[in-house]
Amino acid sequence: MKAAVIPEVNAAWRIQDVPTPEPGPGEVLVRVHASGICFNDVLATRGIIPFPPFSPAIAGHEAVGEVVQAGAGVVSHDAGDRVGIPWIQGTCGRCAYCVQNRPLSGHAAFACPAPRMTGITVPGGHAEYVVAPAASAVMLPDGLDYELAAPVLCAGYTAWGALSKAAPKPYERVAVLGIGGLGHLALQFAAAAGHETIAVTRSPDKHAVVRELGADLIVAGGEQLEAAGGADVIVVTAPSSTAASEAMRGLRPGGRIVMAGIDGLAPFTIAPDMARPFFALGQQVLGATHEGPDVLREALSIVASGRVTPRVEVYDNARVADAFDRVAKGEVRFRAVVTY
Amino acid sequence: MKAAVIPEVNAAWRIQDVPTPEPGPGEVLVRVHASGICFNDVLATRGIIPFPPFSPAIAGHEAVGEVVQAGAGVVSHDAGDRVGIPWIQGTCGRCAYCVQNRPLSGHAAFACPAPRMTGITVPGGHAEYVVAPAASAVMLPDGLDYELAAPVLCAGYTAWGALSKAAPKPYERVAVLGIGGLGHLALQFAAAAGHETIAVTRSPDKHAVVRELGADLIVAGGEQLEAAGGADVIVVTAPSSTAASEAMRGLRPGGRIVMAGIDGLAPFTIAPDMARPFFALGQQVLGATHEGPDVLREALSIVASGRVTPRVEVYDNARVADAFDRVAKGEVRFRAVVTY
Amino acid sequence: MKAAVIPEVNAAWRIQDVPTPEPGPGEVLVRVHASGICFNDVLATRGIIPFPPFSPAIAGHEAVGEVVQAGAGVVSHDAGDRVGIPWIQGTCGRCAYCVQNRPLSGHAAFACPAPRMTGITVPGGHAEYVVAPAASAVMLPDGLDYELAAPVLCAGYTAWGALSKAAPKPYERVAVLGIGGLGHLALQFAAAAGHETIAVTRSPDKHAVVRELGADLIVAGGEQLEAAGGADVIVVTAPSSTAASEAMRGLRPGGRIVMAGIDGLAPFTIAPDMARPFFALGQQVLGATHEGPDVLREALSIVASGRVTPRVEVYDNARVADAFDRVAKGEVRFRAVVTY
Amino acid sequence: MKAAVIPEVNAAWRIQDVPTPEPGPGEVLVRVHASGICFNDVLATRGIIPFPPFSPAIAGHEAVGEVVQAGAGVVSHDAGDRVGIPWIQGTCGRCAYCVQNRPLSGHAAFACPAPRMTGITVPGGHAEYVVAPAASAVMLPDGLDYELAAPVLCAGYTAWGALSKAAPKPYERVAVLGIGGLGHLALQFAAAAGHETIAVTRSPDKHAVVRELGADLIVAGGEQLEAAGGADVIVVTAPSSTAASEAMRGLRPGGRIVMAGIDGLAPFTIAPDMARPFFALGQQVLGATHEGPDVLREALSIVASGRVTPRVEVYDNARVADAFDRVAKGEVRFRAVVTY
Repeated sequence: MKAAVIPEVNAAWRIQDVPTPEPGPGEVLVRVHASGICFNDVLATRGIIPFPPFSPAIAGHEAVGEVVQAGAGVVSHDAGDRVGIPWIQGTCGRCAYCVQNRPLSGHAAFACPAPRMTGITVPGGHAEYVVAPAASAVMLPDGLDYELAAPVLCAGYTAWGALSKAAPKPYERVAVLGIGGLGHLALQFAAAAGHETIAVTRSPDKHAVVRELGADLIVAGGEQLEAAGGADVIVVTAPSSTAASEAMRGLRPGGRIVMAGIDGLAPFTIAPDMARPFFALGQQVLGATHEGPDVLREALSIVASGRVTPRVEVYDNARVADAFDRVAKGEVRFRAVVTY
Repeated sequence: MKAAVIPEVNAAWRIQDVPTPEPGPGEVLVRVHASGICFNDVLATRGIIPFPPFSPAIAGHEAVGEVVQAGAGVVSHDAGDRVGIPWIQGTCGRCAYCVQNRPLSGHAAFACPAPRMTGITVPGGHAEYVVAPAASAVMLPDGLDYELAAPVLCAGYTAWGALSKAAPKPYERVAVLGIGGLGHLALQFAAAAGHETIAVTRSPDKHAVVRELGADLIVAGGEQLEAAGGADVIVVTAPSSTAASEAMRGLRPGGRIVMAGIDGLAPFTIAPDMARPFFALGQQVLGATHEGPDVLREALSIVASGRVTPRVEVYDNARVADAFDRVAKGEVRFRAVVTY
Repeated sequence: MKAAVIPEVNAAWRIQDVPTPEPGPGEVLVRVHASGICFNDVLATRGIIPFPPFSPAIAGHEAVGEVVQAGAGVVSHDAGDRVGIPWIQGTCGRCAYCVQNRPLSGHAAFACPAPRMTGITVPGGHAEYVVAPAASAVMLPDGLDYELAAPVLCAGYTAWGALSKAAPKPYERVAVLGIGGLGHLALQFAAAAGHETIAVTRSPDKHAVVRELGADLIVAGGEQLEAAGGADVIVVTAPSSTAASEAMRGLRPGGRIVMAGIDGLAPFTIAPDMARPFFALGQQVLGATHEGPDVLREALSIVASGRVTPRVEVYDNARVADAFDRVAKGEVRFRAVVTY
Repeated sequence: MKAAVIPEVNAAWRIQDVPTPEPGPGEVLVRVHASGICFNDVLATRGIIPFPPFSPAIAGHEAVGEVVQAGAGVVSHDAGDRVGIPWIQGTCGRCAYCVQNRPLSGHAAFACPAPRMTGITVPGGHAEYVVAPAASAVMLPDGLDYELAAPVLCAGYTAWGALSKAAPKPYERVAVLGIGGLGHLALQFAAAAGHETIAVTRSPDKHAVVRELGADLIVAGGEQLEAAGGADVIVVTAPSSTAASEAMRGLRPGGRIVMAGIDGLAPFTIAPDMARPFFALGQQVLGATHEGPDVLREALSIVASGRVTPRVEVYDNARVADAFDRVAKGEVRFRAVVTY
């Protein structure tokens, strides 16, 4: 099969012929139709998060396509099923985390000693075919285009999970910090749910499109957010602890700030003058990533309904190196999807 | 009536004869039987939080007693009712916070421009009589002693609210950081609910009593907590941002740390190496204080059932200055209650 | 003041001059601008539910207007505030129900021995002025027309509370049984939240407008609902136990049927052949009425946002008898509102 | 291996040598140590629910034991793991119910077209060995005796799930209708959680033991329950629609009646005079069965903590026919467990 192989750390992705994988017991073989590029693909390519420890090195955890073969013992999937393969394919099943029946969520990446992760511990979705446990292959809603489904597998999953975790009431105001791959979806999810929305972005060139996405107001940071009356929910999609700490000033009483992605470059801090209000106001700092599969199903159904639409640049796999390059340089405004 | 008056900033409390208040429209007059001393009474006496801006200066927000007179328009209370007067008696009712029908909770202290607060904005409970809006006077369960009820009005309310906010599952482990007035109740509430419990305390002299209160394990701080396998829920009752930040190391995947009281002396910090686990593990930092009145009712009912028992030193009001002094010096291990 | 007085059981409403009420302690006097007619007004007029036990008999529990005077002790309201007066103005505050701090909800009508109910135990909103406890007078969102706000005070409150109680997930299908005053709002609330919706109605003449309101599908009863694949949530707004029992056949696994109004003419029944599926499928039958004030606030905010719009026939009070007559005969399709 | 085989409909169980099963891909082979007898085993033996459609016919869905072999592709389980095999082992994975990521719960028995059910569609646990998908084999808490664990796999699972679904507040009163296999556990779970409890039973000979199990009060039916002040939560474990309907009279405002097992012999009915209170009081009728695996884990952890203890009669498998006979005749008061 053709696959986008990463020859070595920091080298350009290259389309190569590699052996087509075979589904083991309990697994499905999926003919990939579309596969999103996440910034984590860039980090893995650069070796900032571990370079794929398998050969050939194939990244990608936003793959969607069609089941072509079911392995031994599989009853849940048939050839022809349209599915997506999420980031977490499985867990060890026997650590303290796993035996508490925690959902097959992104928590496992840190909580379980042996998570099976698409493109991280096993070959990923930037290829014509990918295998994964049938139990992890989520059925796509009818009528949802592969190109739109792909980014839901990571960006949309995370964005909807973050918003859901905050459970905003109808009259609450939602701010989204960072309007990129995740943020442009978080903003749309919030607007679709009827909330007054504020985009927090330092990129004036994005203002027009941010309004199109549903922002009622645009501010540049925590101070302006506070001046604008603050927000009940702040969804942090820009990976900056510093920006998140600043945004705390714009959090209303009873408010919740949701971290849906954060760097480890600086501490997240609740300043001394805000520590007392924080607890007395019942505010919350909530971590969120890929939550249970039900959240993914919800996100897919909302996108399938047409109420939220990922903005994607679609690339034929022949141009995967270009696509990667643009993502790496931050030139892709929202999400890049490669077809196979 | 007799009242414990604070003559001036930092002066010793003095029992004096002062005019007995009269209940206005919608208010009740309560004959106080017992009144707990909270460390906030010390802070107010010292002017660290505002010195009572009314004269005579009477502090105290853990008062319980008997209704002796109902003001005009009151239908909910009769003479003879046994009630407690919580810290927040009322709010402005018309700010953004109030019009969203938020509960009569401690949030109002910071969220509402004009909260009415017992012993802070209006005369408090260290007196023979106190007045309060009938709507805030919570009925005490039958058979609950006044001396045990008093500390529930603040310490117990806060401790139960903090634990409830974290909503621990039956198999989850609960750590309580700081085993004083709040902490000794949080520990008991957790044990009564059947959780494995860990007390986090740096006071070896407390170990024996901490075990009596239900601790399965005792550790000295965040590092030892981590070494002991961590906790799913950490209730922070010691007012130290630094200790709370350290405790983060002992928070399990999916874990929740609840701030039920924190100083403003240092920032609360999620260290850079923990920021990524924090969000990816779906951890949470939750502020908690006096939550809705329902939480107070729940705490009172649990104490009335005998499953949780505040440890109190009871003082006749003639000894109120001694009682205050011991609280101020940290010599009262759990809670001091004064009878009137 | 002018008021719509009911001279005696079953007599036509008549605009009369009656004494303007005065606000007691804790009360506000409201200049009514708009007042909805609920079918309960018809039942009271006919004496089917108790005829108003005060004189002059003034019904109406969907009144909105402007505060003109605040009684003694009121801090929460000022002249000029735009408010609505809900059905339940207060409770006894001291029965088992009340001391458990249950919200000021419609439950009180049956749960509390002495609820204070607008137009039922105290004069209602079909008049130029009405008094009510300030604590019950909910602030209206800015910019919301009185004519649209009025029906939210009962019909909208109930419809949104019923839907909220079922807490449908994004991919769940919502059926609304009966498309009248409550139902046309429940249908809109469900569509605004993005759900696939089914209207269950036996009135073919309503089909066009029901589609306009957002119905994706229209069926005539439980059997057709089942044939159409059923629903995850069924909101019953038609007051028929029989129709509700039939609708059970269309309830999906894990589904919830919400009773938001039901007669007492027939039993509600889960048939023998459905009893085992009912429990094994984890289905639920949920009662709903005016829930806590927060639910009313939510409903008002959604209507103020323009996403849901009550369909009203507006009558000048000079025509109140006609308006009443049309409601009584079932000629008003959705909701009648009278201006004062 | 030895197995308790049911020779034909209504014939006595017989210990026989049958082929030991082999684990397929994704499956584990479990050496059964203890296996509870549920009344559904009686119903299957009699052909009232389908007689086991496989040969040899082996019933039983409360099996616990030790993993001795893991099939191809299994990573989650190792030989030596102590596990329980619940009733629902798997689902089709592709019907509307399954694709909504509903938990592996008892709902599947009716909601999914092809559930895999222990002892119902595949050989059950009354044998020396049983196979099941690894994904369904729940790890047992350390130190929990097999004889006590077995009844948790169905009776305890259901009882705790039913109570949890009602989510009683600390001050709420819980009634349990029927004090047998399920009911004696529901009663203990409620008492362990600190609730005031009422046992509803028509068997005066059980009164002494029912008090030992933690009942604060014993009544004979719905009328007596009402006279005793009612309950906020009623857990129905006696399979009688009629008794459940009667119990409605004892349901308090806001109360929830949970059906954890019901016959299909009579309709469940909300009488006409109770239909209006039902909805206006926000009451609820909730179906419950084996809920998600997390609920099973919770129940196991509570039993492992010693706070709830199933009352079991333990039989060596040589006496399985006697054990069955006693269960069938209703002579086993709580639960019979057979060792293999």
